[in-house]
Amino acid sequence: MNVLLFDDFETLDAFGPVEVLGKVEEYRLRYFSEHGGTVASAQKTVIVTEPATEADGCGILVVPGGRGTRRLAVFPPFLHFLRGMADDAEYCLSVCTGAALLAACGALDGRRATSNKKSFAWVKSVRGAVGWEERARWVADGKFYTSSGVSAGMDMALGFVSDRFGRSRAEGIAEQLEYVWNDDCTRDVFARK
Amino acid sequence: MNVLLFDDFETLDAFGPVEVLGKVEEYRLRYFSEHGGTVASAQKTVIVTEPATEADGCGILVVPGGRGTRRLAVFPPFLHFLRGMADDAEYCLSVCTGAALLAACGALDGRRATSNKKSFAWVKSVRGAVGWEERARWVADGKFYTSSGVSAGMDMALGFVSDRFGRSRAEGIAEQLEYVWNDDCTRDVFARK
Repeated sequence: MNVLLFDDFETLDAFGPVEVLGKVEEYRLRYFSEHGGTVASAQKTVIVTEPATEADGCGILVVPGGRGTRRLAVFPPFLHFLRGMADDAEYCLSVCTGAALLAACGALDGRRATSNKKSFAWVKSVRGAVGWEERARWVADGKFYTSSGVSAGMDMALGFVSDRFGRSRAEGIAEQLEYVWNDDCTRDVFARK
Repeated sequence: MNVLLFDDFETLDAFGPVEVLGKVEEYRLRYFSEHGGTVASAQKTVIVTEPATEADGCGILVVPGGRGTRRLAVFPPFLHFLRGMADDAEYCLSVCTGAALLAACGALDGRRATSNKKSFAWVKSVRGAVGWEERARWVADGKFYTSSGVSAGMDMALGFVSDRFGRSRAEGIAEQLEYVWNDDCTRDVFARK
């Protein structure tokens, strides 16, 4: 389980899914950035990361969003690196504008995907070759799971666990976290009316 | 805003409230541990912290829970240090078994408080002089806000924002995070039936 961090990522985008996926004994969570070292979230949390060269290439990739994505979505060296990780990964999960990064590197071409609602126009503008779905809590298409804004990442992570290990496993984790799971990926109360 | 971390804290206990409170422009988030340096969460996230001596003494204190609390709740030097921080703080917010730490140091004596449901028997056993409320999403008593398990910390943080800045401010943050706020502190679907 490779959690990919970068400066100005949105804290809960990463740590919502981390909290859910950390309850799956089969997964081992590790935290990476492109070059390793410390990374600061948009909420000024400083995290120690390993360099991405140390990641399990075919593991599950988690990509948060946040204001740091604006810079990276137009930075070819990062996108080249991300495309490599996304291609190799068994599954790719993005939260919020993390989908803009997966889109910008071309990994989502021809796939259905979603992102958060406040930044939807920008995300769509990043790459037209993606089937953007505005009304969705999360979207699963093949190995790609993309979620709406921030807290939707937890709902998606539970959906991912449900798809891999069965619904009762996901419900057990939600109960453990005392989390009211919004379990219908098509129900999106934050989409434009 | 002093977020107090320790080894084996539960990741979302801290970063749920951080995500909410980070949207309040009036607050500046800082991350502390008793002695400073790196701290590893129960989900193996390594966070760089400042030593607590650098904290704004009368700021707002946030105390997460997690398995690290079991050790600290019976470790007098930590409890002495925590009592000092809690006494000085303008407000104290705890999530999950973070309440056991505030209770163990005596800060919650004579107060009403709650904690997560799976560990409730243990938390109650830590200190009888607290008015433990089993059926509550969160409890506010004076300057102390205590929440139920893990994700309840986000609901409490929104309740705290609502109490300080008005309900529309809290609703605006929930909308920004695409978070379905469980806004009734007395409604607890995870309490024993």
